Amino acid sequence: MMIMHDVVLVTIITEAVLEHSLIEDIGRLGGRGYTITNARGKGHRGVRDAGWSTDSNIRVEVLCDAKIADAIAEHLTKTYYADYAMTLYLSEVKVLRPKKFA
Amino acid sequence: MMIMHDVVLVTIITEAVLEHSLIEDIGRLGGRGYTITNARGKGHRGVRDAGWSTDSNIRVEVLCDAKIADAIAEHLTKTYYADYAMTLYLSEVKVLRPKKFA
Amino acid sequence: MMIMHDVVLVTIITEAVLEHSLIEDIGRLGGRGYTITNARGKGHRGVRDAGWSTDSNIRVEVLCDAKIADAIAEHLTKTYYADYAMTLYLSEVKVLRPKKFA
Repeated sequence: MMIMHDVVLVTIITEAVLEHSLIEDIGRLGGRGYTITNARGKGHRGVRDAGWSTDSNIRVEVLCDAKIADAIAEHLTKTYYADYAMTLYLSEVKVLRPKKFA
Repeated sequence: MMIMHDVVLVTIITEAVLEHSLIEDIGRLGGRGYTITNARGKGHRGVRDAGWSTDSNIRVEVLCDAKIADAIAEHLTKTYYADYAMTLYLSEVKVLRPKKFA
Repeated sequence: MMIMHDVVLVTIITEAVLEHSLIEDIGRLGGRGYTITNARGKGHRGVRDAGWSTDSNIRVEVLCDAKIADAIAEHLTKTYYADYAMTLYLSEVKVLRPKKFA
């Protein structure tokens, strides 16, 4: 019998140029880890075609508690939404080892 | 204090050859953006090994309202499920800026 | 009108060296398919920088029923958590064709 705990998954899709800034932000705001995959796509800033580069966008995931998720969402929105293509969404997921993420 | 809104995340995992068709379909059905990552995997069509190509499968994500999500799911199912390896699932997520996705 | 069914999405983020073992485990425990993307990130084992390799981490997704999801989560936790960097989370999603995943 496993004990599952609710945590929040924060997913950020944005320009690859922001990778290092985001990693710093996430750590400072309490995130204990992150996962990054390269992506391409179209958002409100127009098509980002990967024909010449598959690294143009990144998809960043952070598992954390609700309070840290809110802090990350609020900070990134205020800091980057005006000047960069960025989409951010939160989902509720279950993990086995919550201490890793809080 | 942030205002979060419910939207639907549509995730489609399918053959890379369908990328351009899917992008057209998503746009025509009301999707305002999408994110694509390259993937590999095994589904009901058998193993798709990435040893010779990491581009064999794609994972497409669309954030939209429930009505558009249903339209996308229904259209893709009718159009591609019979002839292509395709998996599609919907999840409820929260976003800060719903106007971007509706 | 589409009929949607609840299934569980198991997401595993771990070291690329475990890919073949995980695929065997997932199949033996009842998973009918999986999707893998290459990733990089930082977890409780420290930074895994992709500067020299974008294949250092993998992100594995499995759609299945709750019973199989529990079996996969329990087995992977017992088998790998002590010796490998691994994060596992479960989310509830909806699919159109549940028979593919059970």
